[in-house]
Order: sequence, then C-alpha cells, then structure tokens
Amino acid sequence: MSEQDTIKDLEPLFNPKSVAVIGATNNWNKWGFSTFSSSLDGFKGPVYPVNIREDNVLGHKAYKKITDIEGPVDLVAFVIPAPYIPAVMEECVEKGVKAGVIIAAGFQEIGEEGKKLQDEVVRAAKKGGIRFIGPNCMGYWSASSNLRAFMFPMPVRPGPIAFVSQGGNVGGAVVMSGHARGIGFHRYISCGATADIQIEEYIEHFGQDPEVKVILTYLEGLNDGRKFMEVAKRVSLKKPIIALKPGKTNAAAKAISSHSGSLSGIDKIYDAVFRECGIIRANTAEELLDYAMGFLTQPLPGGRNVAIITPGGSYGVLCADACAVEGLNVVDLPEKTIEEFNAIFPPRWSHGNPVDPAGDRNFLGYLRAPDMLLNLDIIDAIIFMGFGSFSGFSSMMDSDSSGIGSAGNMFSSMFGSLKGFDKLADQMTAAFESGDPAKIKRLIRPISTMFGSMMGSGRKEDSEEFTNLLTSMIEFSGSGASFLNSFPKMIKSISSGNMEELDIASIFEGLEPFMGSLIIQWILKHKKPVVTTSFTEGAPTLSGGHHAFPSGDTASKVLSKLVYYKEYLEAEGHYKDKEFDPMEFWWVSDSMNKK
Amino acid sequence: MSEQDTIKDLEPLFNPKSVAVIGATNNWNKWGFSTFSSSLDGFKGPVYPVNIREDNVLGHKAYKKITDIEGPVDLVAFVIPAPYIPAVMEECVEKGVKAGVIIAAGFQEIGEEGKKLQDEVVRAAKKGGIRFIGPNCMGYWSASSNLRAFMFPMPVRPGPIAFVSQGGNVGGAVVMSGHARGIGFHRYISCGATADIQIEEYIEHFGQDPEVKVILTYLEGLNDGRKFMEVAKRVSLKKPIIALKPGKTNAAAKAISSHSGSLSGIDKIYDAVFRECGIIRANTAEELLDYAMGFLTQPLPGGRNVAIITPGGSYGVLCADACAVEGLNVVDLPEKTIEEFNAIFPPRWSHGNPVDPAGDRNFLGYLRAPDMLLNLDIIDAIIFMGFGSFSGFSSMMDSDSSGIGSAGNMFSSMFGSLKGFDKLADQMTAAFESGDPAKIKRLIRPISTMFGSMMGSGRKEDSEEFTNLLTSMIEFSGSGASFLNSFPKMIKSISSGNMEELDIASIFEGLEPFMGSLIIQWILKHKKPVVTTSFTEGAPTLSGGHHAFPSGDTASKVLSKLVYYKEYLEAEGHYKDKEFDPMEFWWVSDSMNKK
Repeated sequence: MSEQDTIKDLEPLFNPKSVAVIGATNNWNKWGFSTFSSSLDGFKGPVYPVNIREDNVLGHKAYKKITDIEGPVDLVAFVIPAPYIPAVMEECVEKGVKAGVIIAAGFQEIGEEGKKLQDEVVRAAKKGGIRFIGPNCMGYWSASSNLRAFMFPMPVRPGPIAFVSQGGNVGGAVVMSGHARGIGFHRYISCGATADIQIEEYIEHFGQDPEVKVILTYLEGLNDGRKFMEVAKRVSLKKPIIALKPGKTNAAAKAISSHSGSLSGIDKIYDAVFRECGIIRANTAEELLDYAMGFLTQPLPGGRNVAIITPGGSYGVLCADACAVEGLNVVDLPEKTIEEFNAIFPPRWSHGNPVDPAGDRNFLGYLRAPDMLLNLDIIDAIIFMGFGSFSGFSSMMDSDSSGIGSAGNMFSSMFGSLKGFDKLADQMTAAFESGDPAKIKRLIRPISTMFGSMMGSGRKEDSEEFTNLLTSMIEFSGSGASFLNSFPKMIKSISSGNMEELDIASIFEGLEPFMGSLIIQWILKHKKPVVTTSFTEGAPTLSGGHHAFPSGDTASKVLSKLVYYKEYLEAEGHYKDKEFDPMEFWWVSDSMNKK
Repeated sequence: MSEQDTIKDLEPLFNPKSVAVIGATNNWNKWGFSTFSSSLDGFKGPVYPVNIREDNVLGHKAYKKITDIEGPVDLVAFVIPAPYIPAVMEECVEKGVKAGVIIAAGFQEIGEEGKKLQDEVVRAAKKGGIRFIGPNCMGYWSASSNLRAFMFPMPVRPGPIAFVSQGGNVGGAVVMSGHARGIGFHRYISCGATADIQIEEYIEHFGQDPEVKVILTYLEGLNDGRKFMEVAKRVSLKKPIIALKPGKTNAAAKAISSHSGSLSGIDKIYDAVFRECGIIRANTAEELLDYAMGFLTQPLPGGRNVAIITPGGSYGVLCADACAVEGLNVVDLPEKTIEEFNAIFPPRWSHGNPVDPAGDRNFLGYLRAPDMLLNLDIIDAIIFMGFGSFSGFSSMMDSDSSGIGSAGNMFSSMFGSLKGFDKLADQMTAAFESGDPAKIKRLIRPISTMFGSMMGSGRKEDSEEFTNLLTSMIEFSGSGASFLNSFPKMIKSISSGNMEELDIASIFEGLEPFMGSLIIQWILKHKKPVVTTSFTEGAPTLSGGHHAFPSGDTASKVLSKLVYYKEYLEAEGHYKDKEFDPMEFWWVSDSMNKK
C-alpha cells in the first residue's frame, strides 16, 4: 500500500477559509449554541450560522440552508439530529463544501438503524469528495487555523502534540490537563465513529506534518487493523506514537460496544500489534500525557542503566523499586565514583545508587552529583528527585498555623548578615526599571557570589564553583527570568523585617525555570535523559522547557518508555549506532528553542 | 502478649509541657536552627535552646547543658552529632526528662560502629525511662500539643489521620500533600531507625486513641515481625491500617539497607502478613493518601457490585476496565432499571452499566440516576464520574485565547432571560450583609426555582424535582456556602454585561462543597459508597466533607480497598451481619459533624 498524501487530503479540514455551523442557535441549552460560540472564538475567517428557524444567531446573520450562503464554505459542522444529516450532506455537496465534522450522535452506536443512516451520510459525502470527522464526536482543534470546532468551550493552545481520540471526554480531559501543565496541541481530534476519516489517516497526517513532535491516540477499536499497522509502523519510525487502549476486561469490552459501537478485540492482540509497530502503550489518561511530556522534554537514553539522586532515602527506595519493576537497572557505582562522592558528601551518605547525601546542608553536592554521574559511560540516564518542582517548597511556608514564622527566621538569618545585601535591592530595582539587559547582567555575578557563599560549605573553592553554576543558570534562563524579577521585592521585605509581605510562593515558582535551565544544560551537554520529580503531589507544569514528574514511580515509567522506543528503533535498524542522535525526538519550548 | 497501654506510655511524647532543643543555633545553615524554629511555632509551653557556644538563640536564653535549665523539661530534641548523644542522654536522665526525639543520623545505618553508639543511647535512656523517637528521623507532629518538632518548617494541621513513617521524605510528602488536599493529622511521626519506640507501638497507640480514624505507615523493615502482627491484627479490627512497603525488588532492598539499615525481608512474606492482619497495601505515596481519603469519606460497601455513572462513554470504558482489574463487578442492570432510564435519558444513552446519558442536556438525569441505582439491592457502590470536582470546569473559561467569550455568551443567554434575575443580586447582597440566616434562607427557593427551570428539560415536573434537589443541597451545605456568597457578584457582572469581571474560577470552586453535600446526602440515605471523580488531573481536595479522586482508575482502586477491608472484617467475625453499621469507619469533616 502506498503512502497517502494526507497533508493535501486533509488540508480543507485543518485549514478551512470559511466555516458553517448547521444547527447554530441562540438557545444556550443546545449543543448548537456552544459549538457555534466555540467555533467563532479565534477563527479568522467567516463562521456562518445555519438554522431553519432563526434569523440571527449571537449577532450573526443566520441562513435557512447551507446553499443560501453567498460566499464559499470550506468546512461544515453538523449539530442537528442524525436523521436530517444525509439530506443536508447532499446540500453541502451542491454547495461545494470540502470538509465536515459531524458532532451529532445517533449513528452506528445505536445499532442497525443508525448504521444505515451513517452509510447514507458516507455515500452522500463521497459524491462531493467531502472528508469528514465523526459522527458522534465532540469536535476538533486545528492550531494552524486557530479553529476550535468544539461542542463546548475548552482551553487549548498551539503546541507540538497531535492527538486523535475515539473518546471525547477522555480526549478533552487530556487536552485540558495538557493546558494546565503548560503544553499545547497542533491538532486535537475527537474522531467519534470514524465513518469516513480513519484513525490511521489522522496518524499518517500527523506523521507527515513537521509541526507534530509526538502523536497520542485513545482508541477503542479499529475498522481496518491491517491498514492501521501498516501506517503505524511507518510513522513510528518518524516520531513516537503513544496509545491508550481500554478493553482488557469484559466489563470494558461491553462498555465499548455501547459507546463507540466498536469491537474492542482481544487485548493481547492489540498488545502484540502495538509492540510490532513500536507504539508506546499507556494505561491511563494521565500516563498518555506523562509519556508525551517525557518524549518532548528528554532525549532517548542509550540503554537501561539508571542512577537515582535523591534528597531522602525513602524517596530513593521507592524509586529504585519502581525502576526495577519497569525493567531499568539501578546500576552499582564504580569504586572511583564512590570515592569521589566520599569527598563531597558527609560520611552518612548512602554510599551507592540511589545516591542520597542524607540531608547534606551543602547544597552544592546535589548539584555536582548529576554531572558526575552523567559523565560515566555506564549511566544511560538519571532520575533527579525532588528538585524538579520548587513551587512545592512554598507550601512549607504558608500553612494555616505554621511556617511563616520559621521561614521568616530563616530568611532573616540567611540574608541579614550578607555584605551589601541591603544595597542590592536598589541596584536591581534600578536595573529592571531601566530595562537594560547589560545592567541586569552586571548584577548576576554579585548575586551568584552572595548565594554561592551562603549555600556552599563555606570553603572558598566551593563558593566559587557554586557561583559559576548559578551564573550559568541565570544566564541560560535569561536575565529577565521571573526569579530575578522577584528579587528586589524579596530583599526589601527582608531588609524591612516585614516577612508577611514576602510572597514566598512566587519566589519558589520563579525558581522553577531557573532550576529547569540547569537540567536542560545537563541534557544538552551529555545527551542523556535527566528526569526530575517534584516534592509533593499536584499537577506538574512545563517550566522553561523542562517538565518535572510527580513521583519516582511516574519518572521510572516515563524513562522505561523512552528505553522501549529506543530499543524499537534499534531493532528496526533506525537507531544507527554512532550516527544516531539521541536528541532527535527532543523538543523544548519556544523560549528554549530561540537560544 | 497483653495489650500495652501506649496512651499512658507515650503521653510525655505527645503532650509534653516543656521542650528543649539540644543543638539549637542561630546558624541558619544547620538543622539545629530549623528544628528549634519549627518547635517554637505554635507550641504553648517553653522551648529551651541548648547550645554549648551560644548564649541566646533567636532571642531565647540558651543553656550550655540540659541540666542548667531551671524548670522541668519533659521532651528533648537532639540535633547534635551522633557521638555526643550517649553522654547528653545521661544528662537528660539526670534532669528527669521523660521523652525524646533524636533527629541526628550516624547510627545503625552507617554500620557496626553506629550500631554500638545506638545501643549506648538506648541503654542510657532506659535507665531514666526515657522513651524516644529515632534516631535518624525528621521529627514529629502532635496535634494535641500543637508541637511540630520537625527538621524544617512543614505545613500540617490537626485531623483524623495518624501516620508513622520510616522515611522522612516520603512522610513529609504525604503530610504536605494531605495539607494541600485539605486533610489534617492527629499524629505524624518520622520514626527513623526505631531504636526505642517500635512501629507497632505507634500503631498500638493510634489504635487506642479515639481521635485517630485511619492509620498510615511507610515501613522498610521490622525489628519484631511477630509483635507487629499481633498488634496489627488487634488494631485493624478497630480502624483501617494502610501500609506502603517498598522492597519488591533487589534494587530497593539494597537501597533500604543503606537508608534505614533494615532488612527489607521477602516481599511475598510481607504481602502474606498484611493479608493476615487486614492491612491495606498501597504501592505509592499517592495511593497511601488516596486510600486514607477513601476510608475517611466513604462507608464500607456490602459487596463488590458497582455501577458507574459517566458524563462520557470513554470515561466509563476506562473506569469499567479499572473496576474489573481491581476485582469489582460492573453488574448488569435489571431490565426494570433500563426501562426507567429509557424514560429519563435520550434514546442514545448507553442502555447499560456504565450508565452514560451521552451528552444529555437535561442535567436532572445525571442527578436522578445515582439515587435510582443506590436503591437497587444488587448495587453495593457507585462511581459517579466527572462531578466530584467542579473547579476543573473553570479552566474551560480561562484559556489564553479562548473561553471567556464563549462562556460569556453562555452565561448571558442562560441568565439574561430569567424573570426577576436582575433584582436577585440586590436581595442577596442585602441578605448577606444583614447576616440573618432566615433572610438568606428565604432566598433559597427563588434561586432553586430559577436554576430548576434552566437546567431541567423544561417540563414542569422536572423543574419542580430539580428545584427540590437544589434546595436540599443548599440547605444541607449551609446557607453561608461560598457558592451562594459568590452569587450576587456574579449576577451583577452578568447583568452589566461585563463578563471580564466574572470570577468564574471561584464560582466553580464554590460549587464543590455544594455538590459534595448532595453526595453526602446520598451516602447517608443509602449507607453505600458514592465515589466521585473529577474532570481533569490536579490535586484533589476535601470539600465540605467530600473528596473526589482524579480518575476512574483511582476511584476503582479506592473502592476495591474498601471491599478488601470489609471482607477482612467479615472473615474475622467483626462484620456482624445485620448489626454491622457500614458507617462505622466513616469520618466527616468538622463542618459536617456539626450537623
């Protein structure tokens, strides 16, 4: 089977010049209301409401029929009852419509009668070469035309992910969670019953589109398993495909047949197909997004050997367990490395992998260890625990009854004795107000030196090393980073002794891109994954091109999927030994790409 | 073995009248600084700093030695190097100290020499009857004395959970995540190497303390497995014990030996011990807290039969899979129930379990279905998807480029045509300003009627039913609920057409306790679990006594643990057939208890 040119085929769907919503209405309690309202939102071309009974919808002139519209219509969204759709589709052919999205339900999923109706719609559309999404779907998003033809308002921004979902709710949850994490989508399609455009066609399209870096799919069943495999095998050599496929159990298989009308098939067969095609399998909606974030923000590891760095023994223990369960090797460290760590950590450190400095107060050790481990040939990747998400720290300071007092004591003591500390605030305020990057940059070294002397062991060489690290972090993350921005205010609050004024949450939030920049520097230098975890639960976020996972458990799963994909590419002869660039599948946010 | 009176034995530890911190210092870069600072925070009695070189710590008179302190000292925190501790412990005996917490590390976990030191400390303490936590721990929290003797400031509030953790970092993460979810702890102990007080003694204590409703433990190894079992079997008949025990793999076993110095033992033996003792096993720190929240906010189900109600087919499919994997039965619905649902749902509904109204715009159906299902004898519990956490909705409205326009359209259309809508804001503002509960209550019915007519099908009887439901929700959740509070402002914004002013996030947040009150009413009426899930990822919160889980996967796991515990009690003869009250282990927040 030859490769279909889906970029050309689906062009009118993803880049229409005009849209009509059939069933658009002023009645807020109908899906035609929210679909029209959502489609209007951000799309640059005309969006025509079509309604047989209304003259005007949300201030836009309404048309009785699609053929009444004066200008051309590229795309049509159907939000009218299923039985009317075959006839309206005929009118769309007459009008010269090129693509459609059928949100309406009541087709194959309701049984024989619905299937008949669906076949009529397909026949009608075929006559005019109209390609369509659905039926029984929740709509779609195309970043290239800023079109959100959704059933209801849903937050989505442009980004490197493409996602086709046979479930509108699961799809919507992933899109909205992605938005909350700070990541966007190039395409998101709730594909419904796939009466016309098949899941494998969307995947082919995503594979051909250079804007797409990683492909997600939620699928309940396939119409043409053979074709799906053929496409998936081709595409997964170009970019990772991550699939969530329910139906492990009879309970789910029954639910699938009433939901999408698909036959879910035998789960083991899907498992074999996915393995054959290099498709990465997720078990939950959260994993779908976790794995996507892994591929987007990490290079592929050369092998399964992992080192764990942890701020606490129990974190490391749980992570070691999770790594081993996922088939990763928590490797023994060479004697030489143990000796090197003996020199920088207190005697109570763990003396092995996981590397646990056991509450070392010299923060420098934690920051040296990753680089030292990444230098070793036997280490393919590291998991750096508890440092990915600094905003977790802020909760220490804002509990109901505790925290601010202790934190205030600490900050006063930390900063109070520093030389020139009180003058720094004025200099920084002046530099930021001037907006002069050179002036701001000149302040980097004194700030770094100050922190270096505080956070290091007190030894001169440690302070110098710390200063250099901090300088590189500040420079790499950009002089305008929010961390630096929060500084003058912080210094003023501390100098005035008014700890209540201190916005600790925003200081720690500001630390995140700053810390992220250090991690990206390690990745760029070593071309190995550095997967980080945050301190506590809560939705992780993409920060300065880096994304921290909520636990060692998630980090291990993500890392194991990177290994799985690398091994697939290798088996397929795509991992070209020395030629292979582990950064090939690596994506970072625009702010980092600009460097 | 007879039951130890741990309430009396551990009284000086949990309710000391005075505290001394040995190693308290003004040097912020030492643990003695943050431990002293944290111990000061909220504790009512005196907290004495002891430091051989400082005269004054954070404004408090410091003492060279514990014996220099004039008044009595009940509790001592040790934050000095391990080798000094045996001698200082002797002085504590001399001083008449009753309890201690040894934060310092450098004992059994570093090997033979450390073990010897540890034995010396134990011998010294025994002479004076001093019971102590640690060594090598991160401190502890006692709600009854508001004492947070932690190594660093950590947010924690009083509540129904007691937690003993052999890992300070994992423990801290759970405590902080609990705080973020809105739940508190009666006791939290980072127990370290358990040289004196053993894990089973803490568990015995938690079992004897009526303030404790659920017990959590993270454990790496046990010193006396037989005693642990004996205690756990006794306690788990009184309240649930949930354990996180790593060490499934060699990688973790090695990590454990360098962390706590414990022998992790063979994992299968632990599994058998836990089953024998009715201990609920968690696999991650998140699960530890999820299961605790499940036990605290749900009654025990009578069996494994579950019905799922979902706003979308794919959610239901994934949840059905998860239920089946967890050993729950997604039962077939009786023909009669199917017929009843046929009458309230659109023809496209799923016609089975999971119950999916498939995008029904008449919200009433979703609210009727749980009650109808809970009425059935064959249903032991329900999972109600996507309704637990309304704050997820708000993200629909505040995306970067979309949402507010569509949401504004919808709100205007929804409220614009309602009779008397514009007058309501003034009435509500006046009622809230008066603070008169009677006045506020009088407004409930007009508001309910308004929403009832909007959200129902339009049929008179539907509106009436909806109105009654809403009235009960508003009354049950208290007339001062934040949902009602946000109303006048919302109405003003909509009336003035100024949608940008609309604080949609807080409106949806306000809906949560309101919705929670409905769920609690169902639970109270049917004495069956109603486990809910939210729409998207993100840390779930305890709201008005109800807690929603992030996904069907989590909900199924939680429900399966409730079943596991019920079956354990039954096998132990504690589930006394007709006499058994499924609410026995149910806890609700103070605000709900006051009813």
